[in-house]
Amino acid sequence: MPLKRINSAAAIAVLAAALATPSLAAEPAGAPVADFTLANGLELVVIPDHRAPVVTHMIWYKVGAADETAGKSGLAHFLEHLMFKGTAKNPTGHFSQVVASVGGQENAFTTNDYTAFYQRVPSEKLKTAMEFEADRMTGLQLTDQVVLPERDVILEEQNQRVANNPRARLGEQIDAALFLNHPYGKPVIGWRHEMEQLSRDDAIGFYRRFYAPNDAVVVIAGDVEPETARKLAEETYGKVARHNNILPRQRPQEPPPVAVRSLTLADPRVEQPVMQRAYLVPSFHTAKPGQSEAIEVLAHILGSGSNSRLYRALVVDKPVAVMAGASYDSFAFDMSKFGVFGVPHPGVSLPQLETETDTVIANVIAHGVSAEELERAKFRMIADAVYAQDNQVSMARWYGSAIMTGATVNDVRHWPDRIREVTVEQVQDAARQWLDKQRSVTGYLIKDVSPQAEKKS
Amino acid sequence: MPLKRINSAAAIAVLAAALATPSLAAEPAGAPVADFTLANGLELVVIPDHRAPVVTHMIWYKVGAADETAGKSGLAHFLEHLMFKGTAKNPTGHFSQVVASVGGQENAFTTNDYTAFYQRVPSEKLKTAMEFEADRMTGLQLTDQVVLPERDVILEEQNQRVANNPRARLGEQIDAALFLNHPYGKPVIGWRHEMEQLSRDDAIGFYRRFYAPNDAVVVIAGDVEPETARKLAEETYGKVARHNNILPRQRPQEPPPVAVRSLTLADPRVEQPVMQRAYLVPSFHTAKPGQSEAIEVLAHILGSGSNSRLYRALVVDKPVAVMAGASYDSFAFDMSKFGVFGVPHPGVSLPQLETETDTVIANVIAHGVSAEELERAKFRMIADAVYAQDNQVSMARWYGSAIMTGATVNDVRHWPDRIREVTVEQVQDAARQWLDKQRSVTGYLIKDVSPQAEKKS
Repeated sequence: MPLKRINSAAAIAVLAAALATPSLAAEPAGAPVADFTLANGLELVVIPDHRAPVVTHMIWYKVGAADETAGKSGLAHFLEHLMFKGTAKNPTGHFSQVVASVGGQENAFTTNDYTAFYQRVPSEKLKTAMEFEADRMTGLQLTDQVVLPERDVILEEQNQRVANNPRARLGEQIDAALFLNHPYGKPVIGWRHEMEQLSRDDAIGFYRRFYAPNDAVVVIAGDVEPETARKLAEETYGKVARHNNILPRQRPQEPPPVAVRSLTLADPRVEQPVMQRAYLVPSFHTAKPGQSEAIEVLAHILGSGSNSRLYRALVVDKPVAVMAGASYDSFAFDMSKFGVFGVPHPGVSLPQLETETDTVIANVIAHGVSAEELERAKFRMIADAVYAQDNQVSMARWYGSAIMTGATVNDVRHWPDRIREVTVEQVQDAARQWLDKQRSVTGYLIKDVSPQAEKKS
Repeated sequence: MPLKRINSAAAIAVLAAALATPSLAAEPAGAPVADFTLANGLELVVIPDHRAPVVTHMIWYKVGAADETAGKSGLAHFLEHLMFKGTAKNPTGHFSQVVASVGGQENAFTTNDYTAFYQRVPSEKLKTAMEFEADRMTGLQLTDQVVLPERDVILEEQNQRVANNPRARLGEQIDAALFLNHPYGKPVIGWRHEMEQLSRDDAIGFYRRFYAPNDAVVVIAGDVEPETARKLAEETYGKVARHNNILPRQRPQEPPPVAVRSLTLADPRVEQPVMQRAYLVPSFHTAKPGQSEAIEVLAHILGSGSNSRLYRALVVDKPVAVMAGASYDSFAFDMSKFGVFGVPHPGVSLPQLETETDTVIANVIAHGVSAEELERAKFRMIADAVYAQDNQVSMARWYGSAIMTGATVNDVRHWPDRIREVTVEQVQDAARQWLDKQRSVTGYLIKDVSPQAEKKS
C-alpha cells in the first residue's frame, strides 16, 4: 500500500506538469504502443512495459452476448467456459497447469461486445501462451461429456451471481426495460430458461462462426519488444487460416426512447433498499466527436466520489442517502447507459430519494457546472487514467475493450486530450440532451416482506 | 339493424335452451365443419353456410411478426402488402378488379402469429379466388420498382396508425416493456427505423421461407359443400408443391416476470389521460386445461360491459372514471396478455384511478366472484359467440385465428362446453395466480404540456 501511494504521488506530479503545459496537450503520454496486423487478419497491439520480466497476453474476440441468436442467451459466456475444455494438442487442464507451474495467472471474461482470455506469465513464456491460444482458436474439441457438466457450472454461476444477488437482479430488470429492441437488454450470463437448453451444437456453431484470427485482437502488455512479439505471433497465430465468412457486427438498434419507465423489484434478501436509474446515451463509438467525453465528465461531476454533486447534496448536505453516485461507460459498440443510484438514509423513502436526485440533476441541466468543477474533474479523471496505466492488466484491458467497441489505439492514446477539450457548455448540453427521463428506466429494489416471499425467491 | 336484433333474439332463445339442457352440453352447436388436408400439406376448413349464395375464402399463413428475424421488424406486414403486387399470370391489380367486378370484397391482415388474406365473393367465384391465391403463394414477382414505393406506404401506415395515435403509442410501449425476451414485444407494424431499411431481398427471403401449402390453412365459410371445396382446392392449391424446409414456430420465451413495471408516455395530442395495464398470462395454447377459459370468464366479469366489476365500481359507484374495462385474448401461439384500463373522471389523477382499480382487483383475488355473476358471464359469453357465428367473416376468422395459434377445429367447437365447466374457484384462482403486479406493466398516457412538446412529437 505505501508503494502504491508513492507511485500515485509521482504520477500526479507528472500529470500536473502535463496539464500545466498546453503545448504537450496533443502528445499522448506513455510508451509508444505498436499496432499491426498479420497476413491472416489478426491484429496485435503491443504495449512495452519493462518494469518486471512478465507479460500480460490477452486475446480478444469481437463477439459477445449481443451477437447471440435470439433464444440462445448465455451462449457467448458458455463458450468462454468451454474454451478451457482442451484440444488434441492440449487436453483439458494442461495449459492451466503450465501457467500455474511458472507462477502465472489466467482468466477470461465475456461482455455484451467481446470475449477475452488472458495469461500473465514470465516473459519467456509468451510464445507458449501464444501457441496455446492459437491452438484453441480453431482446435477446440467438444463432446457432450464436457459440454453438459459445464452447463451446470454456468447455471450455478447464474444462481450465485444473479439469482441470489438482488442488486444484480435489479440491474438485469433495468437493462431489459431500457433496451426495447437491442440485444443489450438480455443478460450476458443468459436467461436461465435458455441457458438450460444450450447444447454442444449451439456452442460449436457459435465457435466456428466467430472464432478466427480476423475476428480477434491480441493485446500484449509487458516485457517484450514489438518486433519480438510480431515474430512470435507469426510463428504461432500466423499459422491459423483466415475465416472467410466473418460479418461485421450488426445488431438491431433501439427505437427513439419515448416513455418514462420505472420498475420495482421486491426480494426477501434485500437489507438496504436501492434506487437505480439508467439513461440510454451514446457510447464513444456511436457519439458525435466530443459527445461521449462530455458525458464522461458529466458522470464524474455528478456522481464520482464524495465531492460529486449527488454525494454532496444527498449524503452530506441533507442527508437523505447513505450513498449516491453516477456512472457511464463510453466503451460499447452500440449505445451505452448513464447510471444514477442512491441508497436511502433510514427513514427516507425511495420516492423521496428519487425526487431529491431529480432536483440535483435538474440543477445541472438548468445551470450547468462551474469552470472550477470542470477543471477538477478533468484533472482527476486523467490522473485516474494514469494510475490505471500503472497496472499492466488494467492497461491491456483498457486498450482491448476500446478496440473491441470500435475505438482505435490512437483514440485511447488521445483520450486525455479529448477530455481536456470538454467545455462547461458541452457538459451542460450533455445533461440537457441525455438526462431526459424519457430516455430512462428507474428501478426500486425493496425488501419483500410478503408471506409468499420465501416461496418466490 | 332491426334484422340484427331479431337474429340475436332468436339466437338467445336457442342458446337459452342449450344452456338449460345439460345433456346437450358436449354437443357442439352449429353446422358440421369439415377439416381435411391435401397431399401437399395444405389444411382446409369448410364451414357450410347456405343463407346466401356467397363464400368467404381465406388463406392463413402460419407466419407473423413474431417470426421475423431480429432487426427486420415489420417484414411480415410488409410482405402482406407486397402480396398484392402481382405474378406472371395476374399482374398487379388484376385480381382486385375481378373481385370488385363481381361485387366482392377482399382484404388482408397481419398479427404476431399469422398473415391472412381473404375474399368474399359469389359462390361460383370460389375457384377463381383459389386459383388466385394458389398462384401468388409461390408466383409473386417483386422488383425494386414495386417494393420501394410500397415501403413508403407502410411507413405512412405506421405514421397514421401509431406515430399519430397516442393510445397506439402507449400500447406499443407497454408491449415492449411487458415482453423482455419474446418477439411479441416488437410492434407488428415494425419499428420505424427498421421498416425504413426493409428491402426487396428481405421480402423475398421471408416469402420463400414461409409461404407454402404446408404452412397454410384455407378457411372457407359459405355456400359450398365440403366435397366441392375439396375438389376445387385439389384443382388449384393441389398443384403447388410442398415446401421441404418449413420449421415449427419456435420463438424465444419469457423469463419469469419478477418486477412490477410502469411507464408514462406524454404526448401533446392527448385529450383524455388513460391508465392501461397488461399482465403476462397464458394463452389457450400455453395454458393447462381449463386455465385460459377461467381467465376469459375473469376478464368478462371484471371488465366487460357496464355490468362488470370495474365499470360498476369505478364509473357508476364512485365515480372516479368515465370508462373502465378489462380484456383477454386467448388466441396467441405463445403467452398472452390480460388488459385492464381506465379513463379517469375529470379531476381524478391516474394514480388515484390506479389505486381504485387495484382495490377492485384485490377484492376479486380475496373474495372471488359469485355463482350468479359466473352464470351471467357464461351465458353472455356464449351468446356473444353465437351472435358472432351469424357473420360469415367473423366465424371464418374465429376458426382461422384459433388454428393459427395452436388450437384445432374441435377446440373451437367445444369452446362453449369448456366455458360452461369453469367454476367460481377457478375464476378466483386465475385472479390470484395471474393478476399479480409482478407480471404486469402499467402505462399512463398523459398530455405533454412541455414547451418542447411540439418539437418532440
